[in-house]
Amino acid sequence: MSPRKQATSTDLTLEELLCSTERAWERGSDALAQALEVLSRDALRILKEEQVTPVRSVVAPEGLSEALALPAHPGSLAEVQERVTQLLLSAPSTSGRRFFNQLFAGHDPIGTPTDMLASLVNHSMYTYKVGGPLIVMEEVVLRGLRRLAGFPEDGGGIFTPGGSLSNLSAMLCARDRFAPSAKEEGTPKGLTLYCSEESHYSVKKGAGIVGFGRSSVRAVPTDERGVMRSDALLEMIQADRRAGSQPMMIIATAGTTVLGAFDDLEATAEVARSEGLWLHVDGAFGGTALWSDALRGLCAGLERADSFTWDAHKAMGLPLTCSALLTRDPHAPARALSEQASYLFQSGADLLNPGTRSLQCGRRNDALKLWAAWQYHGDDGWTARTDRLWALAQTLTALIKRRPQLELLMEPQYLNVSFEYRGRSSVSICERLERERRALVGYAYAKGRCVIRVAVVNPELTRADLEALLDEVEAVAPHCKPASA
Amino acid sequence: MSPRKQATSTDLTLEELLCSTERAWERGSDALAQALEVLSRDALRILKEEQVTPVRSVVAPEGLSEALALPAHPGSLAEVQERVTQLLLSAPSTSGRRFFNQLFAGHDPIGTPTDMLASLVNHSMYTYKVGGPLIVMEEVVLRGLRRLAGFPEDGGGIFTPGGSLSNLSAMLCARDRFAPSAKEEGTPKGLTLYCSEESHYSVKKGAGIVGFGRSSVRAVPTDERGVMRSDALLEMIQADRRAGSQPMMIIATAGTTVLGAFDDLEATAEVARSEGLWLHVDGAFGGTALWSDALRGLCAGLERADSFTWDAHKAMGLPLTCSALLTRDPHAPARALSEQASYLFQSGADLLNPGTRSLQCGRRNDALKLWAAWQYHGDDGWTARTDRLWALAQTLTALIKRRPQLELLMEPQYLNVSFEYRGRSSVSICERLERERRALVGYAYAKGRCVIRVAVVNPELTRADLEALLDEVEAVAPHCKPASA
Repeated sequence: MSPRKQATSTDLTLEELLCSTERAWERGSDALAQALEVLSRDALRILKEEQVTPVRSVVAPEGLSEALALPAHPGSLAEVQERVTQLLLSAPSTSGRRFFNQLFAGHDPIGTPTDMLASLVNHSMYTYKVGGPLIVMEEVVLRGLRRLAGFPEDGGGIFTPGGSLSNLSAMLCARDRFAPSAKEEGTPKGLTLYCSEESHYSVKKGAGIVGFGRSSVRAVPTDERGVMRSDALLEMIQADRRAGSQPMMIIATAGTTVLGAFDDLEATAEVARSEGLWLHVDGAFGGTALWSDALRGLCAGLERADSFTWDAHKAMGLPLTCSALLTRDPHAPARALSEQASYLFQSGADLLNPGTRSLQCGRRNDALKLWAAWQYHGDDGWTARTDRLWALAQTLTALIKRRPQLELLMEPQYLNVSFEYRGRSSVSICERLERERRALVGYAYAKGRCVIRVAVVNPELTRADLEALLDEVEAVAPHCKPASA
Repeated sequence: MSPRKQATSTDLTLEELLCSTERAWERGSDALAQALEVLSRDALRILKEEQVTPVRSVVAPEGLSEALALPAHPGSLAEVQERVTQLLLSAPSTSGRRFFNQLFAGHDPIGTPTDMLASLVNHSMYTYKVGGPLIVMEEVVLRGLRRLAGFPEDGGGIFTPGGSLSNLSAMLCARDRFAPSAKEEGTPKGLTLYCSEESHYSVKKGAGIVGFGRSSVRAVPTDERGVMRSDALLEMIQADRRAGSQPMMIIATAGTTVLGAFDDLEATAEVARSEGLWLHVDGAFGGTALWSDALRGLCAGLERADSFTWDAHKAMGLPLTCSALLTRDPHAPARALSEQASYLFQSGADLLNPGTRSLQCGRRNDALKLWAAWQYHGDDGWTARTDRLWALAQTLTALIKRRPQLELLMEPQYLNVSFEYRGRSSVSICERLERERRALVGYAYAKGRCVIRVAVVNPELTRADLEALLDEVEAVAPHCKPASA
């Protein structure tokens, strides 16, 4: 066959072509209906198994490629459905009662099934023509988040596929203010960014991606709680300016990954104001503190920021991904990101075409699960949920203090509780807990130590679950490597 | 309340805290089980309604914000589920039999329910510790796609949230080859990129984002079919070099958005080789041609490219998003994107930690639906499906030719069929078709004309559906504005 040859309708009659390729395509909806009929059954089966199995067996990667190989010939619907369910049951459960490994865990009673329906209806959230009322729904959710953050309700924002890309989008908004020609002419040299040394790795990563370079990010020292030192921040900005750089953006963190530290946003906002910098707050994890009367004070000053990242798929318990970028200036995201595309943006004002303010073209409907969960919980429910997480974190802290072999790293500032087993390696303990199917939990380096970091983000857990976690740590630790190893 | 004050366990006893915040949190799984029990019912209801309603009523945005407002107090599970279903039924259906507006449409019988389960189990695809066998599953799918594309099976790749971000990731891989210090020191000036004037808007957008600047993108003229002229490409590269720029990357398109044109990849690869440039192929839409004996020749030369974007959520019919970036060099994505993060990447080789080669940190499991659909269809089924789409596109073409009032823009090269109604405005026709609930289809500008562009991407459609679309066009056109208006 010649490289550019192509079949034409003269090779076969059209009737022949359509008939010869029919197979089951015209009956695809029947097959889907059949698959959907058993979906509830499979979903309930997975849910039930999660509840009775604290941690699933670890499956080694060897040999899996062959077991999961792609076939040349079709399989039966029922067999494939069963294989999918079995595969899912062989992967670690992120909703089991001994899962403490990430900043997310568990299910939302309505957010989860709603996200499942979002896959079924399959909207792409770029235009009102295709998204219809769902476009307004997304804006309603963004408005609700802005209200809570103390941002102007008519500010800007967009849902993105995760906190890393929300932070990256904020960098583009800031770049656009300080170097309006960058989008057209390229990122200029010399712009500098500031974040704490405890900030998420997506800050350096994003700076590398958008052309500032990772070396443009200054890691500001933190105090003993992991909070960015605003005196050091100011000094570094002024030193950079003297050295000929152009300080541009501060990325404060609300809820760091390891310590759960909240940078002092009042002090940071004051530095940003006096030095004329863009202030972004990465609240991917900690934004949820805004729901709690007890924790809200940690975010004081947020209302003075220019932009804010908030992941509802972390401490708000919704399925991945559900991340919002909020901006004070309603036009900032579109100025940084919009392109003309007459084949796509065909009607409605730009406000109704969110594709003009997104990194993406096609975009899954991530906002719907949060809208639905908000309808179910209400503001009051989110507050109760967050208060419960905070109570669980404090309970875990108290339980650790009662066990002489365990040493708490520090009083929790948020939902992260870190500790060591005296004299034993936290790495070794975490690996053994996983291998022996006792718990999934991660280690982290903080304050010169390696600790076991527990993220308390599943409100369904009870005091008994937290006791059980510590029991498991105490059961394996004596058999683990010494701390110095 | 003072800005940084925070409640402590001394304010209330822990028992009081846990009890006072219990509400239904410990029974969340019961509520979820209750919601999942009716999920199949709601899903089947939506599916059935789609089948009987060709196009839903257009809902105006006015007043929707109030109707969708977020409540202060909790709602009942059943009521919220019903509201979600009603909201979804008020948005345009992307699977109705008169939906031709995007490069995606319809459902996959197994890909859709599998994606729904992916939301339930909620894995984040960054590490083997959390993803387990699902990490190998993703690699198996990438390997299958590489095999089909003629790439080395042991090449690299990653699933991203859409073709725009796959293309952007490819730009970062290319940048890393030509300016290895860019990630650390910033994107240098003078690197230039080449794509056809018919390429997707994400090319210019991506160049703006990663710091090259939109002006670094050269729009190469196309021939009368919309195919990039490789002679002009070579001339532009050489002229840029003479002018002191550093040509870096060619982005060829396999399946353009409007005309469905495939750049000549053999000729483009030869230019890339002789000039030493990175060749990326944006096959977001057209990669699916590889499945068809009749269409595969359009991609001849693809096996010589450095990287390739393929969206399985377009012509392969899977739910958004399901986009793969494939690279020849297995290490290219990680070199461009990896960061250290000891709190996240805790075990396993980098191959088992795909977070090291992604733009994202948390990442939804987009590969699973493609794996499941592949198990169901097999290679043979994908071929039959693609052949059927091609037969439908040719059928539509033949039907247009038989109607004297309709004028075909050109013989279809792929699944895009464009035409005009003689003397009437395509914009006006498309708007009226939507308003009168007859069909959802978009207009596009091509070859100096404004045409009605039909993307034939739903294999469940029949010849009768295509006839019906043309009937609707002929019914409204006489009442639409003249073409010159």
